Amino acid sequence: MNMITISREFGSGGRELGKRLADLLGYDYYDREIITAIAAKKELDENYVEKALEGRAWQTVPLTFRQSFSPINMEQAVYTSLLVEQKKIIEEIAKTGRDCVIVGRNADKLLADKNPFRIFVCAEKEAKIQRCLERAGKTEHLTRKEIISNMQRIDKNRAKIREMVAGGKWGDCREYHLVINTTGWEIKDLAAAAAGFISCWIRR
Amino acid sequence: MNMITISREFGSGGRELGKRLADLLGYDYYDREIITAIAAKKELDENYVEKALEGRAWQTVPLTFRQSFSPINMEQAVYTSLLVEQKKIIEEIAKTGRDCVIVGRNADKLLADKNPFRIFVCAEKEAKIQRCLERAGKTEHLTRKEIISNMQRIDKNRAKIREMVAGGKWGDCREYHLVINTTGWEIKDLAAAAAGFISCWIRR
Repeated sequence: MNMITISREFGSGGRELGKRLADLLGYDYYDREIITAIAAKKELDENYVEKALEGRAWQTVPLTFRQSFSPINMEQAVYTSLLVEQKKIIEEIAKTGRDCVIVGRNADKLLADKNPFRIFVCAEKEAKIQRCLERAGKTEHLTRKEIISNMQRIDKNRAKIREMVAGGKWGDCREYHLVINTTGWEIKDLAAAAAGFISCWIRR
Repeated sequence: MNMITISREFGSGGRELGKRLADLLGYDYYDREIITAIAAKKELDENYVEKALEGRAWQTVPLTFRQSFSPINMEQAVYTSLLVEQKKIIEEIAKTGRDCVIVGRNADKLLADKNPFRIFVCAEKEAKIQRCLERAGKTEHLTRKEIISNMQRIDKNRAKIREMVAGGKWGDCREYHLVINTTGWEIKDLAAAAAGFISCWIRR
C-alpha cells in the first residue's frame, strides 16, 4: 500500500496538487471526504465541522484521547469528539489497504507507522495571494486585505494544531520527504513532475 | 542557460546529489572547484581557504564590499577579500552561459537575478550521522561524538553566513524551489528522481 500525505499552506495550491497526483497515479483521494464522513457520523453540519476543525487553535485539547479525560466545557467536548472521529476515519482509510492521497488533517503524523510519503506544499506570499484572488473572483467576494488576513489566520491555526497533535513544527522541512514550492508552476505540470519523483521513491 | 544551486545540511549527501545531477543532466559542476580557484587567485593554501570560508561566523564582515570599507583588523581583511573573490568567481561561472550545478556558497542568493532552480538538501539527524560515520571510516578517524559536534558547528556557521550574505533564513523551505530529504534514499536513485523533476521545470 502506497500512501501520500499533503500538508499545505493556505493558497499554495496543495489541494489541487493532491487531487491531480491521485488522478495521475490512480490513487484514492481524501480531503473534503473526511469532513463529510465526520459530519455524517456526528449528525452535524459539514460547514460547522470544517470550521471547527480548521478555525480553532485547540490549545486546550489533550494530545491523547483517553477515557479518563474530562473536558472542562461543552465546546471542548465537541472539539475533542470531532478530533477523535477524524482520527478514526483516517485510520479506517489506512485499513482499506488501498493506495491513496490524503490532504491535510495531519494524516502524516496520525499514520506515521504506515510511513506515508510526506509532502509539504508552500509558495511565495504574493503567489498565494494571486491564487486566492483568482479563486475569490469565481466563488467568493473577498478583498486582497481579507485574503491576507484569512491566510495568516488559517496557517497560524494549522501550525498550532500540528504542534498539539504531533509536537512537530508545521512547515519544518525536515518533517517531510519533499517540500514543494508551487511558485512559477502550473499545478498540472507540477503534478506530473511530482508523480514522476514519487514513482522513483516507490520503485527504489 | 539553466542553473541549479544546492544548499545542504552537513552529512545530508547534498554534494553527491549535486554531482550526480550534473552528470545526469550533462551540466558543468562547481563545488570544490570554487575553493581551488580562490586559492589560486589569492595564492593561498586550499585547505586554509576552505576552513576560513566554512568555519567562521563572519558576523562582523559587511554585506556589501565597497571600496570605502576599512577592515578593523588583518583577519577581517583576509576574510572579506576571500568573500569578494568567491562572489567574482561565481559571477564568472554565470557569465559563461553554460548550464551548471553549483553546490553551496549561497550561490542561489548571489545569482538571484539568474533565477536558478534552488534546492535545499536535508536529512534526519541519525541518517546524517550514519553517512558521516561511513565516510569517516574510509578517510578520517572521527568518533560519533566528534561527528555530531562537527555537524552542529558547520550547519550553525552555514546558517550564520547565509543570514549575513542574504538576510534569508537557511533551510527555510520557502526560500527554495524544492527541499529534498535524503533519508531512506540511495543518492543515485534520488538523483534520477530529482533530474526528472527538474526537467519538468525546464520544459514547463
